[in-house]
Amino acid sequence: MRTPPSLLSLTVDSALLNLSNISDLSPLPEHILLDLFLKTLRAGKLNEKVLKLFIATGKDEVLALIRSLNIRPIVDPVLPTSKSQLKISDDEIDIVIGALRTDLTAFLNDWRPVFSRFHLIIVKDPDLKEELKIPEGFNVDIYTKSDIDRLVGSSSILFYGYSCRYFGFLVSRNKYIVSVDDDCFPAKDKDGSLVDIVAQHAANLTTPATPFFFNTLYDPYRKGADFVRGYPFSLRSGVQCALSCGLWLNLADYDAPTQALKPEQRNSRYVDAVLTVPARALMPMSGINIAFDRELVGPALFPALRLAGEGKLRWETMEDIWSGMCAKVVCDHLGFGVKSGLPYVWRTERGNAIDSLRKEWEGVKLMEEVVPFFQALRLKRTTVKAEDCVIEVAKEVKEQLGKVDPVFGRAAEAMVDWVRLWRAVGSSSS
Amino acid sequence: MRTPPSLLSLTVDSALLNLSNISDLSPLPEHILLDLFLKTLRAGKLNEKVLKLFIATGKDEVLALIRSLNIRPIVDPVLPTSKSQLKISDDEIDIVIGALRTDLTAFLNDWRPVFSRFHLIIVKDPDLKEELKIPEGFNVDIYTKSDIDRLVGSSSILFYGYSCRYFGFLVSRNKYIVSVDDDCFPAKDKDGSLVDIVAQHAANLTTPATPFFFNTLYDPYRKGADFVRGYPFSLRSGVQCALSCGLWLNLADYDAPTQALKPEQRNSRYVDAVLTVPARALMPMSGINIAFDRELVGPALFPALRLAGEGKLRWETMEDIWSGMCAKVVCDHLGFGVKSGLPYVWRTERGNAIDSLRKEWEGVKLMEEVVPFFQALRLKRTTVKAEDCVIEVAKEVKEQLGKVDPVFGRAAEAMVDWVRLWRAVGSSSS
Repeated sequence: MRTPPSLLSLTVDSALLNLSNISDLSPLPEHILLDLFLKTLRAGKLNEKVLKLFIATGKDEVLALIRSLNIRPIVDPVLPTSKSQLKISDDEIDIVIGALRTDLTAFLNDWRPVFSRFHLIIVKDPDLKEELKIPEGFNVDIYTKSDIDRLVGSSSILFYGYSCRYFGFLVSRNKYIVSVDDDCFPAKDKDGSLVDIVAQHAANLTTPATPFFFNTLYDPYRKGADFVRGYPFSLRSGVQCALSCGLWLNLADYDAPTQALKPEQRNSRYVDAVLTVPARALMPMSGINIAFDRELVGPALFPALRLAGEGKLRWETMEDIWSGMCAKVVCDHLGFGVKSGLPYVWRTERGNAIDSLRKEWEGVKLMEEVVPFFQALRLKRTTVKAEDCVIEVAKEVKEQLGKVDPVFGRAAEAMVDWVRLWRAVGSSSS
Repeated sequence: MRTPPSLLSLTVDSALLNLSNISDLSPLPEHILLDLFLKTLRAGKLNEKVLKLFIATGKDEVLALIRSLNIRPIVDPVLPTSKSQLKISDDEIDIVIGALRTDLTAFLNDWRPVFSRFHLIIVKDPDLKEELKIPEGFNVDIYTKSDIDRLVGSSSILFYGYSCRYFGFLVSRNKYIVSVDDDCFPAKDKDGSLVDIVAQHAANLTTPATPFFFNTLYDPYRKGADFVRGYPFSLRSGVQCALSCGLWLNLADYDAPTQALKPEQRNSRYVDAVLTVPARALMPMSGINIAFDRELVGPALFPALRLAGEGKLRWETMEDIWSGMCAKVVCDHLGFGVKSGLPYVWRTERGNAIDSLRKEWEGVKLMEEVVPFFQALRLKRTTVKAEDCVIEVAKEVKEQLGKVDPVFGRAAEAMVDWVRLWRAVGSSSS
């Protein structure tokens, strides 16, 4: 027989008032327990002791509710929530910048409000002759050609052009890396405030990702958002996020053919969203504005695919796209998430797209081979470290793509060399 | 030997000037042809005749560029683009509304600027006793219990509550259906303009979807957006979009536990994006604000999963979530796309989440069985029509889930009945 609502309400309310004096909740009927539990939550009265009382009832639906709301034995007494964000301190982050121009004064001064608290690793493109110009007031380590030569020696990996930034990934000793191109400046959000890319990337990396089911309201861990009706409770705790891919306002990261066809096209749409790219879905990672957990996925972020006619303009390169495919496959295999969306940077660029078109044409054609390869790639269950995943991918690249174009054979070789370097310089977390 | 830039530029420019007098482009070197082709595009001089001249050269890279930019033999002389949108006329759209309340005056008056051009199908919940109140000035057909009884007769499908709307899907003879709940009102976009949900759903359904590779700038077919660097050209033409799932401002479609825990939570974030949910990624389709191509996927939008204690509040139902999983699997199998995002509606709702919690609890638990089932489900290659896909899914449901809970056996039966009805009333497109 069901208790009438008024009586139910009375029972729950008086139980709630007396929670601190109650030593056993099990005599209460299950449906009253459920209501009591929810009212306790809403009243902010759930603490360690009270939670234990509910768990001790042993009632199936109560336990299922506690599990489904992802409430752990150690509970924040104020706000019980599954949305616990990892704590992260400033000295766990390195900001890596590949310097493709000598004068970084305007770039760094613009970023000062965001970057000045953090350690910067600036890697100078070995092709640059003049000395770098870096303004005062930053905690910065600069690496140049002589550092690269000393550490890397002879290798199939070439750290010039955009690839110089990856040397910064190699020498970093921090858990998190944020990397941004030197032609990017701080963007403004919808309210006109400066976008703090470090804070947003950190939020992306330290809240769970949800690759196994798509949430229509995007990142459920953002303030004001949540999981929608029908989202399985068992998947709501999500997985660790290993890679955060930011976006670009003004000049987006289009390829040379698109730029050539639409020279006036600018991206002015600020999409206020972050989402997890679903498991097994591939995406084109742009290295312009990214962050990652170096311990989880660092070995998969490398410069391996170098085009024959590669230039110094973003649309003349493919090394980040290739590495991104590899990183996504590795994350899917290891059960980590990849997010895309916020934060935005404001991007300016030099160069003539039509002049670049012939250079990038090679890259555009290669993608037709690359995508089906990575879509079909499945790694061995026994491969459980990012480094070993990269070695395994390299082997498959050599076997399957090596015969298609020699550029892939060289990429496979560079990937193996990268892991060797990663281990040699002690970047490996193990 | 490469032509110096100045000479190249001269050759291209003079060729461009004389395009209309040229009968054969093949003597030109390939790299000049490429530049000429791009300049022709940019100058808006590509017409049917000129395109044929380029195609007639037979040069590999020229042909590849034409293919990759998805330029078809019939070309818009003003703006050559792959972004051709299907034309759609007002009388190809039915707006279907399930009436769960008798007085639709405020609802329809608010929607008048958007709905008045279209044919409306209103299906009255058989549980409603009083006569519907419909304001003047709409082209509307109303269906009631007697219509349902006459057409459906005895069937395992029950068309009451939210399920009454599906009767409208069944009797529609139009290609496109837009369906919105009667507790939704027009939202405003970022600029304060009224959101025209019909126009946005129509745009979603008539531009291609891109389920096989994720585009980081969301829907590449929107004005101002595009495919980003690294997106394979062979996938840029996309596939037909069969289903468009809109979102909700103010009261989002959360489940009862989330609403109960956060009674004050409102969705105020207007995310200005539409995206294709990647192939093989499942999502929780909410029936509150959707549109679909009835010919492509109509047979997969049905009321089949009915909870034992189902009520009249959205969070007490699961029929749309179940149908959405089925529709997504069918779209993935048949090579159609599903989009999610814009348009938004402004949603208000009645009811007390805590009172509903016990009712929906059953649905929340069922999802833990439902999601792994649909994730693993693969249909036979030989099944190539949506109707037959639904029959095949029903068979698997009965075999695999039937033993877990009798609710699934009943769902399977209702799906088979739905297809039978669909064929019997002539909704079938064949």
